[in-house]
Amino acid sequence: MLRTTIRQFSSKPTSLRNVAVVLSGCGVYDGSEIHEASACLVHLSRHSASVQIFAPDMQQKHVINHLTGETMPETRNVLVESARIARGGQSISSLDKLQVNQFQAIILPGGFGAAKNLSTFAFDADKMTIDKNLEKILKDFLHSRKPIGMCCISPVIAAKLIRNVQLTLGKMKNLNENDAKNLFPYSGSVLTARQMGADTQECDINEICVDERHRLVSTPAFMKNAPFHEVFDGIGLMIEKVIQMIGTTK
Amino acid sequence: MLRTTIRQFSSKPTSLRNVAVVLSGCGVYDGSEIHEASACLVHLSRHSASVQIFAPDMQQKHVINHLTGETMPETRNVLVESARIARGGQSISSLDKLQVNQFQAIILPGGFGAAKNLSTFAFDADKMTIDKNLEKILKDFLHSRKPIGMCCISPVIAAKLIRNVQLTLGKMKNLNENDAKNLFPYSGSVLTARQMGADTQECDINEICVDERHRLVSTPAFMKNAPFHEVFDGIGLMIEKVIQMIGTTK
Repeated sequence: MLRTTIRQFSSKPTSLRNVAVVLSGCGVYDGSEIHEASACLVHLSRHSASVQIFAPDMQQKHVINHLTGETMPETRNVLVESARIARGGQSISSLDKLQVNQFQAIILPGGFGAAKNLSTFAFDADKMTIDKNLEKILKDFLHSRKPIGMCCISPVIAAKLIRNVQLTLGKMKNLNENDAKNLFPYSGSVLTARQMGADTQECDINEICVDERHRLVSTPAFMKNAPFHEVFDGIGLMIEKVIQMIGTTK
Repeated sequence: MLRTTIRQFSSKPTSLRNVAVVLSGCGVYDGSEIHEASACLVHLSRHSASVQIFAPDMQQKHVINHLTGETMPETRNVLVESARIARGGQSISSLDKLQVNQFQAIILPGGFGAAKNLSTFAFDADKMTIDKNLEKILKDFLHSRKPIGMCCISPVIAAKLIRNVQLTLGKMKNLNENDAKNLFPYSGSVLTARQMGADTQECDINEICVDERHRLVSTPAFMKNAPFHEVFDGIGLMIEKVIQMIGTTK
């Protein structure tokens, strides 16, 4: 038997790093993108953040068979399915229980759930609405100048909420290289975010967009058709910046 | 707008690193542990492995409400739910399509799905049986001396399959410190693995157990009640060792 050991960097969570993570189900096509959610939790854990997970206690807009892409004739609850990512009920609560004064930052991973369950972006584009609880919570974070981290498609929620917000939804499709390799298959959402008044920035998978005024950090994640480890690392940058912002002057 | 960039380490997958990953659903209590599966895919991606995911096309043993822990009155298919982790049907196939000669290594993440859907360990303990397709596949990997990586509870499948195999399922509960903090809540499985003839090794979250004779690498992962980043890093060691073994003399 051979053992290999890695050194542990252990540090205790501090009360200054209470971070809320909002999920929207479990699976890229009808809920939270699983690997983005997991990456957020891994990086928050490495930064000794104390995390509480939230999700709306409501029926999913629909259930997608992720093998075929077809709609399944059944219903699932967003909170119950999100609990799969949270590893049980102890770490997750209904979104309407989120008290902004208990947290220093909030993170929204991507996945179509952000555009179907947390908002209606996938159905209504620039006419989208945001879940009422989430809208109030995000406004409270904004007004108290606490940082917000978003990735993949979830920044469309900020585009709707905040006039002239700076954010990224990845790069545009109409760059030849991107088109040829279909690197940014969902980049139509960039145009819609602009229609809603957002100041969209072209970021690649290894970049973050930081709106210092609104204390919003965004990164493309799976808006790019990128390898898993590049998505993981990009989200790491986003989390790192959010954690840094917690400690900075407002 | 401020941009932060990380350097990319890009390297092309080589045909010598075709790795099969076997999932068992989507969610720790009735399928694959989501974060372990994601960590495997992130680390394999970083090592430029070319990954194909497989799962048995069968009904789950049951569906667990991860919010309450209760059984739900519905059925779900292991392959369909695993496709949530695979991000769609293109990256995942039915387990009976796995051709051993196309792969250099195989990885089994943990989660109760390994003990409920891939085997009957959760119900039958040392009288467990292994899914017939999986049993044949693992025997073929063993006989062709291709490395096998397992984590969390999935090494019980090796305990059943391989006489005197060396593996870890974490540390024993009867160490005072572990008991007090409930660090290894599932360590009863260590005794059962011993009953089946396994040479179990006490490994912590940041250690791997390497059985050179059978080319099996195992690590405790969520057998320990550990922070997300420690589970992620431990799985990183396991994947790294498996990738190393691909290139070594048999």
